[in-house]
Amino acid sequence: MATIVQKFGGTSVGTPERIQRVAARAVRAHRAGNRVVVVVSAMSGETNRLLSLAGQISQAPHHREIDVLVSSGEQVSIGLVALACCELGVEARSFLGSQVRITTDDAHGMARIRDIDADSVVAALDRGEIVVVAGFQGVNEDGQITTLGRGGSDLSAVAMAAALKADVCEIYTDVDGIYTTDPRVVADARKIDRITFHEMLELASLGAKVLQTRSVEFAMKYEVPLHVRSSFDESEGSWVVPEEEGMEGAVVTGVAFDRNTAKLTVLGVPDVPGTVADLLFPLGEAGINVDVIIQNTAIDGRTDVTFTVSQTEMERAVALAQVVANRLGASGIVADAHVAKVSVVGAGMRSEAGVAVAMFRHLGQANVNIQLISTSEIKISCIIDEKFTELAVRVLHEAFRLHEAPAA
Amino acid sequence: MATIVQKFGGTSVGTPERIQRVAARAVRAHRAGNRVVVVVSAMSGETNRLLSLAGQISQAPHHREIDVLVSSGEQVSIGLVALACCELGVEARSFLGSQVRITTDDAHGMARIRDIDADSVVAALDRGEIVVVAGFQGVNEDGQITTLGRGGSDLSAVAMAAALKADVCEIYTDVDGIYTTDPRVVADARKIDRITFHEMLELASLGAKVLQTRSVEFAMKYEVPLHVRSSFDESEGSWVVPEEEGMEGAVVTGVAFDRNTAKLTVLGVPDVPGTVADLLFPLGEAGINVDVIIQNTAIDGRTDVTFTVSQTEMERAVALAQVVANRLGASGIVADAHVAKVSVVGAGMRSEAGVAVAMFRHLGQANVNIQLISTSEIKISCIIDEKFTELAVRVLHEAFRLHEAPAA
Repeated sequence: MATIVQKFGGTSVGTPERIQRVAARAVRAHRAGNRVVVVVSAMSGETNRLLSLAGQISQAPHHREIDVLVSSGEQVSIGLVALACCELGVEARSFLGSQVRITTDDAHGMARIRDIDADSVVAALDRGEIVVVAGFQGVNEDGQITTLGRGGSDLSAVAMAAALKADVCEIYTDVDGIYTTDPRVVADARKIDRITFHEMLELASLGAKVLQTRSVEFAMKYEVPLHVRSSFDESEGSWVVPEEEGMEGAVVTGVAFDRNTAKLTVLGVPDVPGTVADLLFPLGEAGINVDVIIQNTAIDGRTDVTFTVSQTEMERAVALAQVVANRLGASGIVADAHVAKVSVVGAGMRSEAGVAVAMFRHLGQANVNIQLISTSEIKISCIIDEKFTELAVRVLHEAFRLHEAPAA
Repeated sequence: MATIVQKFGGTSVGTPERIQRVAARAVRAHRAGNRVVVVVSAMSGETNRLLSLAGQISQAPHHREIDVLVSSGEQVSIGLVALACCELGVEARSFLGSQVRITTDDAHGMARIRDIDADSVVAALDRGEIVVVAGFQGVNEDGQITTLGRGGSDLSAVAMAAALKADVCEIYTDVDGIYTTDPRVVADARKIDRITFHEMLELASLGAKVLQTRSVEFAMKYEVPLHVRSSFDESEGSWVVPEEEGMEGAVVTGVAFDRNTAKLTVLGVPDVPGTVADLLFPLGEAGINVDVIIQNTAIDGRTDVTFTVSQTEMERAVALAQVVANRLGASGIVADAHVAKVSVVGAGMRSEAGVAVAMFRHLGQANVNIQLISTSEIKISCIIDEKFTELAVRVLHEAFRLHEAPAA
């Protein structure tokens, strides 16, 4: 008897009819002899509706009370999904994050899961019930409701799967799997059958929207196999699994891109130890994620430091960096919001030299100038002019022959 | 330092602006040096919206999951009210029923409060915070969410006031107090300054809509003074208090009426002990409330039994009574949906004979025929033809001079 966690996002539970479809799928899995846990988000639009009410009342909302407010959205979903399962003749029981119980730290709005005590869930499964869990929410040590931040329902599902040692965590979505790149950019983008956690992690953090980075990390840590699949049909989706012998032999698995990138260069920074840390410390304090960081060779004891942040945080980053730059006696800051990051990802790169060279050559042949480069074991990212994003993605997808199924 | 519980219904928190008004009132009371607990219902329309979603999914909804669903409504309200208080500069903290904690029995949809452990609320008040509690909801011993049924938020407020030994429980409403009768029927109906729990209890159960019967019972039991007042202004409302010397000297305090009344007569019932119990038992089992019950003098070993139920339950009551009537060999059932109950209520009746006679005489002079009579220590009810309801109320209001303030 397998244990299956099924996660459905807001669109999949957006109307009563869709909720009935979700319930039908859970009931099918239950009748096929599985122990079934369904994790759901708030109905699409609901979280925004609630935040809009809060926005009409408070300009600087209190995070603790915002969590109380928005977590009501998943409460509605679990009640309705459980009702729909019961209506199909299978006893179902809903669980709030506080009832499971999913314990988190105190960081309201972006809490981290500390522990899951799933005993009551196990008891319900033992009784033959379908369990319906509210995604996105937990409870801190004091019993206050917390929420897990963007994409938190994925994380709830993976964490439930880990706690229950589930055989699979199925992530239902409006696409039918993970693609070699965005099919809206490259028409012959191919669905990937199997991908490793490491690759998925890179793709997720590089801008692929299907899975949230933290949930992939969590799945990797606890070795929870993920199955990303369509909520509209029964077709196989993409499996995200631990790395193993004999997997897809491709050197490059996918091409990711992120237009929400901005580049800052601090000019004429004194080349003494600790300067870059001084420069970036206030950004980290302010919660601004700094991505690619490059430091030029120093000339006459001065150097240029370039880094990227998300476009939406560029203004704040410039303001914060300016304060430090002034203090350090740097000569100025240049910011460019019109850049993008294009990356190739593949576990096979580890053993295959030449991928970086191939990437740079193909971009060069297409007259795409590379502004910054950043590499890891299994990915290479280039910062380029934003207007060449789609061109670069198409060129690389074609160059690495990602439209073709990899050799077995 | 006084402890004040303020209860606001769905209309009072129906929009962000109204929520800001609720918060402003709580903050004023807090700044005046009081310990303030706010109890709120779901925003008006929200509970119906949620039930409508459930209705689209399930025809015979599961009570436990319905409670999970609808209790999200108050969760939204407490989050927003707490945010609004914080925005006005006073730290406020929301509490769900499960967080307070308000423990109930297992009767989902109409649970009864068993216990309130208000330690965490007291701790928050001690820290100088405004406490915002979700009305209408509790939690059973297993940690499942329960709801208290119709008007449950009043009950939550009174129960919180009792648990905290509050100085007053203020019930905010869209009228400015309790009236001698419905002002829509009698233009010179007068606002009552002080009324006893017993009188209020009779009025509430006789059809006055301002307070729910169970909450008045609870307030009486724990001697929680209630102050029913307008959410739109600062005027004094009506106080509901324990009986005491020197209270308003009126014999009759108010006139109540209930058009939602139907009369059933079972004809030719064998006059043997236990017959009426046999007849009414299945109605009680089905949750149908039987109000006035009259049994005629028996003739030839047979009698007629007449009783009233709410109009909305008449058909079910007839069907259930018919089964027993057949078994008992009764000769038939006559039902009349077009009756109403008109009642006069007053604690002074205890010591004042002649109120009943005066009531009957005034109705008779107005040509209103009395079909059934039911009395208690402090009220007299008459069942009359529904079309005479307003006439009867006006005649009695005038006859007992309720438009005049009672002698001090």
